Amino acid sequence: MANVSRGALQFANSDREILKAYLPPKDGNDEIQRPFTTLTFATSLDSSLALSPGTQTVLSGPQSKAMTHYLRSRYDAILIGVGTAIADNPSLNCRIEGVGGYGGNGLEGQPRPIVVDPYLRWDFSRSTKVLSLADEGKGRAPFIFCAKEPQEEKVKLLESLGGKFVILGISDTGPLKGRLDWVDILQGLAWHGIKSVMVEGGGTVINDLLRPHYASLIDSVIVTIAPTWLGQGGVVVSPPRRVSAEGNYLAAARLKEVKWHPLGEDVVLCGKL
Amino acid sequence: MANVSRGALQFANSDREILKAYLPPKDGNDEIQRPFTTLTFATSLDSSLALSPGTQTVLSGPQSKAMTHYLRSRYDAILIGVGTAIADNPSLNCRIEGVGGYGGNGLEGQPRPIVVDPYLRWDFSRSTKVLSLADEGKGRAPFIFCAKEPQEEKVKLLESLGGKFVILGISDTGPLKGRLDWVDILQGLAWHGIKSVMVEGGGTVINDLLRPHYASLIDSVIVTIAPTWLGQGGVVVSPPRRVSAEGNYLAAARLKEVKWHPLGEDVVLCGKL
Ligand SMILES: NC(=O)c1ccc[n+]([C@@H]2O[C@H](COP(=O)([O-])OP(=O)(O)OC[C@H]3O[C@@H](n4cnc5c(N)ncnc54)[C@H](OP(=O)(O)O)[C@@H]3O)[C@@H](O)[C@H]2O)c1
Ligand SMILES: NC(=O)c1ccc[n+]([C@@H]2O[C@H](COP(=O)([O-])OP(=O)(O)OC[C@H]3O[C@@H](n4cnc5c(N)ncnc54)[C@H](OP(=O)(O)O)[C@@H]3O)[C@@H](O)[C@H]2O)c1
Repeated sequence: MANVSRGALQFANSDREILKAYLPPKDGNDEIQRPFTTLTFATSLDSSLALSPGTQTVLSGPQSKAMTHYLRSRYDAILIGVGTAIADNPSLNCRIEGVGGYGGNGLEGQPRPIVVDPYLRWDFSRSTKVLSLADEGKGRAPFIFCAKEPQEEKVKLLESLGGKFVILGISDTGPLKGRLDWVDILQGLAWHGIKSVMVEGGGTVINDLLRPHYASLIDSVIVTIAPTWLGQGGVVVSPPRRVSAEGNYLAAARLKEVKWHPLGEDVVLCGKL
Repeated sequence: MANVSRGALQFANSDREILKAYLPPKDGNDEIQRPFTTLTFATSLDSSLALSPGTQTVLSGPQSKAMTHYLRSRYDAILIGVGTAIADNPSLNCRIEGVGGYGGNGLEGQPRPIVVDPYLRWDFSRSTKVLSLADEGKGRAPFIFCAKEPQEEKVKLLESLGGKFVILGISDTGPLKGRLDWVDILQGLAWHGIKSVMVEGGGTVINDLLRPHYASLIDSVIVTIAPTWLGQGGVVVSPPRRVSAEGNYLAAARLKEVKWHPLGEDVVLCGKL
């Protein structure tokens, strides 16, 4: 057991309690139209996810990292855009003590990684982190949401590890015309048995989902803020402003049912859109 | 008394306690080179001070407003750039219960407003808020830090209310070449008897003072963050990134001795650069 749970993280019960009101119900309904959806990401004080596009920046401290892994154990899936898959080569598994691969049985508590990659730009192989973790039994293989036919060999590799491609149609209405509509993506998740999803990034994905148009799809938001200014030129979370009927600018989005929870050097902000 | 303190604000002792380590000492040294300097401002989650340049946006809630006024009672001066003077027509006085004009004696506890206006763009009159409050005995008249000779009539008006112009030389070195150097501005304040100053904004002033070049001038930072995304196109606090010897980007600034303090719907972040 000591060996199995090597590298496992711990997250205090008192900290778990605070997150409770923002997490998916433990006994979810089977007949859902869309999963319980939480936006969760870490920013600097200047709302940056990374120092520059295409690079990964470690922003938050060890306690916030443990929180992210605890959250991952509470959701059926973690979703990212292809920009993040390419930039970060992320693990997207859960390393909290007691889940499958880290002291627990099978793949219990391991979320399903979802990559939104319409034009199949992510050139993964068996040694790509998320696939190799699936191979080792320390995580699940990804579902890739795309808009074109994948190569036979990629399908084989992905399916051999338990993953798959899901092909969706390009949207011809709404603010994301010419791209995938988030209503379709979330419905697609529900059809594939996903009852809860945490959306981790990156900038494009978060900014799209913070638009008023999609607010009704988002059940909660959990943002970690680190006491750093990354500076101009980073990957910034800042959705488009709203405009009133009289032509005045209005705030893009405001959270309600707000809770701030200091965690190490960072603060965790929980709220609803 | 009830009449005198009309519009006065209250700020709980328990909240005052938290700020203590970030405020100027109560018995300051007389022989100072520069004042105890605190950056204090309110931003959205996307680090915006206002929805668009030249407009004022109410960001933080009533408790944060009371905190700002408590802070103002603890400093000799409040400093802003001319952009803020023009956009906001701000009061720049202290309305915490018990200070001069709000239940207290004379102008006790009222900070000195400082406006940095090199080219005298601020076209104030006796009815401009900060001057009319000085006229009513509810605040002090401003000191205007400039780089050119003011008009005779403005000098008269300002001096009749107890304010003045302070002329400084334009800097010919450093990151603000062609503008006023912050070392000179802060030294100028000390020469005019100011032992502590809170710098309230706006974007240009804060971004300049968060540069590593000026970090040694800043004694503390107190930022209020509201749980709102104002959206793209606002007045953003985000200083220039640093670059390492190898040409890699580094974070612009990080706070140490960090304390996060939830206050109403907002959070207050205290730290040192
Ligand atoms: N701090 C954090 O918490 C955190 C978390 C995650 C990521 N990040 C950082 O964020 C950065 C990546 O952000 P990013 O904005 O470049 O990329 P991203 O949001 O991860 O991915 C954007 C790409 O995903 C595809 N996509 C997303 N939504 C889509 C939609 N509705 N329809 C069709 N395609 C869609 C598009 O691919 P196509 O271009 O192929 O159309 C789009 O260009 C990296 O630097 C990463 O380190 C930070
Ligand atoms: N949320 C908050 O806490 C908060 C607080 C304050 C202000 N604000 C907002 O911030 C906005 C104003 O910001 P801003 O960036 O436009 O203006 P600003 O920072 O208030 O003023 C900038 C101007 O001040 C002068 N200045 C500042 N530093 C100088 C230096 N070192 N040397 C020479 N001149 C200097 C320059 O005037 P010249 O252009 O004449 O050279 C400069 O353009 C407004 O929308 C206001 O509502 C928000």
